[in-house]
Amino acid sequence: MPPPPRHPRRDSAASSSPPPGSENWLRPWAQMKYFSFHPAVYPNMIRATSPDAGAGDLVNVYDKEGQLFGSGFYNPKAHVPLRVLQHGENVLTEDALDARLDAALDLRLKMLRLPDTTDAWRVISSDGDGLSGLVVDRYADVLSIEVTSLGVWRRLRRWLPKLHAALGTKQHVIDVDADIARIEGMRRADVPEMDDPAPRSVRVREHGVRYQVNFEDGHKTGFFCDQRENRLKFGQLTRGRRVLDLCSYTGGFALSARMAGCEDVTGVDLDEKAIAQAKKNADLNQVRIDWVHGDTFTWGRQMQQNGKQWDAVVLDPPKLIFSRDAEEGQLGRNKYYDMNAVALGLLERGGLFVTCSCSGLLDVAEFEDIVMRAAHRNKRRLQILDRTGAGADHPVMSNCPESRYLKVLWCLAW
Amino acid sequence: MPPPPRHPRRDSAASSSPPPGSENWLRPWAQMKYFSFHPAVYPNMIRATSPDAGAGDLVNVYDKEGQLFGSGFYNPKAHVPLRVLQHGENVLTEDALDARLDAALDLRLKMLRLPDTTDAWRVISSDGDGLSGLVVDRYADVLSIEVTSLGVWRRLRRWLPKLHAALGTKQHVIDVDADIARIEGMRRADVPEMDDPAPRSVRVREHGVRYQVNFEDGHKTGFFCDQRENRLKFGQLTRGRRVLDLCSYTGGFALSARMAGCEDVTGVDLDEKAIAQAKKNADLNQVRIDWVHGDTFTWGRQMQQNGKQWDAVVLDPPKLIFSRDAEEGQLGRNKYYDMNAVALGLLERGGLFVTCSCSGLLDVAEFEDIVMRAAHRNKRRLQILDRTGAGADHPVMSNCPESRYLKVLWCLAW
Repeated sequence: MPPPPRHPRRDSAASSSPPPGSENWLRPWAQMKYFSFHPAVYPNMIRATSPDAGAGDLVNVYDKEGQLFGSGFYNPKAHVPLRVLQHGENVLTEDALDARLDAALDLRLKMLRLPDTTDAWRVISSDGDGLSGLVVDRYADVLSIEVTSLGVWRRLRRWLPKLHAALGTKQHVIDVDADIARIEGMRRADVPEMDDPAPRSVRVREHGVRYQVNFEDGHKTGFFCDQRENRLKFGQLTRGRRVLDLCSYTGGFALSARMAGCEDVTGVDLDEKAIAQAKKNADLNQVRIDWVHGDTFTWGRQMQQNGKQWDAVVLDPPKLIFSRDAEEGQLGRNKYYDMNAVALGLLERGGLFVTCSCSGLLDVAEFEDIVMRAAHRNKRRLQILDRTGAGADHPVMSNCPESRYLKVLWCLAW
Repeated sequence: MPPPPRHPRRDSAASSSPPPGSENWLRPWAQMKYFSFHPAVYPNMIRATSPDAGAGDLVNVYDKEGQLFGSGFYNPKAHVPLRVLQHGENVLTEDALDARLDAALDLRLKMLRLPDTTDAWRVISSDGDGLSGLVVDRYADVLSIEVTSLGVWRRLRRWLPKLHAALGTKQHVIDVDADIARIEGMRRADVPEMDDPAPRSVRVREHGVRYQVNFEDGHKTGFFCDQRENRLKFGQLTRGRRVLDLCSYTGGFALSARMAGCEDVTGVDLDEKAIAQAKKNADLNQVRIDWVHGDTFTWGRQMQQNGKQWDAVVLDPPKLIFSRDAEEGQLGRNKYYDMNAVALGLLERGGLFVTCSCSGLLDVAEFEDIVMRAAHRNKRRLQILDRTGAGADHPVMSNCPESRYLKVLWCLAW
């Protein structure tokens, strides 16, 4: 039998003839055609798999020279058929996989000690915790779980009680995108816990501020724990200031400033449901905030014409760049530029400006460049005080750097 | 008289014939040849100056079209003859310049409220506070002042009592580099306060840790307040761990971990004077730390051979890149790579790795790339928890982004 070609065409399918020497390989296995440390291995990067490699299995990964290279989840039907979870010559066992849950819990509980300040935090952050395809958020006694890989799906029944026991949580909301479930072959019957009675909403506290988190409207009226430390910092820096929260969503930044003692706080959001939830959150904390249901551009320009200014403005728009497509990407970038220009126009000289981007496709250098151009064009200089991102419960693995997404720039606008 | 050429050669000297229309310009003035928002304007970028523009004066800056463009310090003899302090059509008065001191003080005292946690902080950060050429650090009741521009030098007598009054400080150490003083024309007689009796050292406290700061050995046995928040965070994350502080200098990270409860802490530095000061600092806090006078490479490789490992390592080397020269720059980059590889070799799987660079010529993306390559080459993955920099008392102005220098990467090394 001839050996597989050393430089196969990029579009060639995985070979059906076993590579030489593979009879000695640890089964089940998959062999890569190209060298890559990235956790996602696409179909055209796979040379061959052992016949016993099944969907959802943990397989041993061999490089093109036949050296053991790592271990990962295999799923032939998936868009990403191989998710490498570990590199190196150690075989990743099911026990070692379970230990990743413990490592993720140790980071949050023992090192970051998140329960000291909040009961809303990310427990597992997919590739950032070496558990590709699993996101778990904890909201009070509820686990909000999102699964996007069959490898995780097959193990969820084993992991669920482990997580509840470690966290003292009692309920769960399991979210699986229907399209992903179909492609990955995730059957509802695999995880009967998906049908357990789930709460519609829950109340959480974060640094002394209370929020209601809903599970029914998707992300419409929810709560993003990634901005936790930034909300705290915003409250610490704004004391006594007149605060404007643009794209206020369910009110996190506005509430943090209000609870830290700012009496004049305005929150603006285009989403009616988010504003309704923000109002409820303010009620929950027994404070008054001016909520505006409006578009940042329209409302902001109107305020600018009225000569209205604030001495602290935070701008935290939803994701604006969804695609690597150059034209769509440019539209998103233009929107960041325009929104930052509008926000700066509402800020007094010397005021605090906090501007965020959660678009993973916009890197931090480019984001800062957009903000600075918007400032300079409008005759403002930014005195940069700090740069932050998502909390440490949203870690990013060094071989998957594009999972970094949240960028926050802190400055005084001269 | 012919108008000056519209596109003068880059090396042409400032024209001696007045530009057309300049008789109506606000005096004293300087005219730029090229458009730039950067605060530093070099000789070949200046077209002309008014005859009354004197060394150390605040001048109005006109663009090549004759439009008022900003204001700045002028000094014909200096390497940077024009330091633009403000852009736009407002004239910067001496009063407005004094107000920048107030703004710098407000940021530290009212917004950051630094005195709540420390008596060692940066009061004025040169371009970062719109006061090009003035750095003021406060150490307990002593101001440590460094002046590098004649514009600042000429105003120091006016500003010194203002700073002491606002801060409640009593003494000062004024540092002027002899070469810079000669080139800028800074005469000792301009600031007789330079000869005031100055303390040899002072004791400070930072987040509950005490340090002695010496003013005699230059930076040999001093204290860098830029790492303040990072030292605090390091203590918070290392509790109970065995900690190694590589390039420990006068012991900041080691002490912060020890004072936060780590009992097994080792600090290593090549500089004998720094280690001697670190010992004194440990004594001051009545704690025991293992101080090693040694080279990170030699000592680190020896420990690696001995199989010694720690579960938290911080690496904060002194500046390693001093020049834009490609070859020298590469040597410095290689040193970062090698040092990070050695540090990672001393770290247990899952241990906390905190790695720093204070080389302004190495940007944050390139620094992270070096660290990640050093990790991947040594079969480690970094689970990145956070990225930080200098404290907010070291701000960076958006039109002078290269004054950003300190980068700190926080991760668990898998």
